[in-house]
Amino acid sequence: MLNQLSPLDVAFQALADPTRRAMVERLSRGPASVSELARPFAMSLPAVMQHLALLEGSGLVVSEKIGRVRTCRIEPRALSLAEDWINARRTAWERRLDRLGDYLEELKNNGDDNASGT
Amino acid sequence: MLNQLSPLDVAFQALADPTRRAMVERLSRGPASVSELARPFAMSLPAVMQHLALLEGSGLVVSEKIGRVRTCRIEPRALSLAEDWINARRTAWERRLDRLGDYLEELKNNGDDNASGT
Repeated sequence: MLNQLSPLDVAFQALADPTRRAMVERLSRGPASVSELARPFAMSLPAVMQHLALLEGSGLVVSEKIGRVRTCRIEPRALSLAEDWINARRTAWERRLDRLGDYLEELKNNGDDNASGT
Repeated sequence: MLNQLSPLDVAFQALADPTRRAMVERLSRGPASVSELARPFAMSLPAVMQHLALLEGSGLVVSEKIGRVRTCRIEPRALSLAEDWINARRTAWERRLDRLGDYLEELKNNGDDNASGT
């Protein structure tokens, strides 16, 4: 099971690189051609294409070739998948802290009741 | 710049593995000792420790040794960092779509006005 990459594995893997995050950042402002995407980076086009292939493999980016221009855009569902996974863990932790806080408050109040009862 | 790992690089890298996500998932329900964390996995303790070291290196998990027991807990700030990054890109994309929708609606209304004017 652990040898097969899940959608979350590849999404987080894709986001673990600053160049790929910069590409996602750029595409979050609107679709772009491959050469527009490549422009800000001091790297060869094949290196850019490799990052782009990984982003497409992760489902975070989709591209379409019309005539001679390949246009890339973000795929928000893959972003949501990763975001929702983190959010669920973070909120589970926060709910637990809240319950712990309630419990401590309850203990304190019971202590006060006992103190006033004596 | 690209050779230095940023907090986001290491956080997403840490989350890109199903064993490490299962550990974060377990810790989101409360702190656990290393042996409690290791129990569900069919892997050696050194392999578990390696995953744990990567989680600690990413800041997603912190651990403290009291007596002979090392207890691990989640660090929600590192989770938030990764979650917020994704959220900002996703909402930028959605805002762009909303603006595009407004613009198309406006075009349509102008078209209707022109049509009714003739």
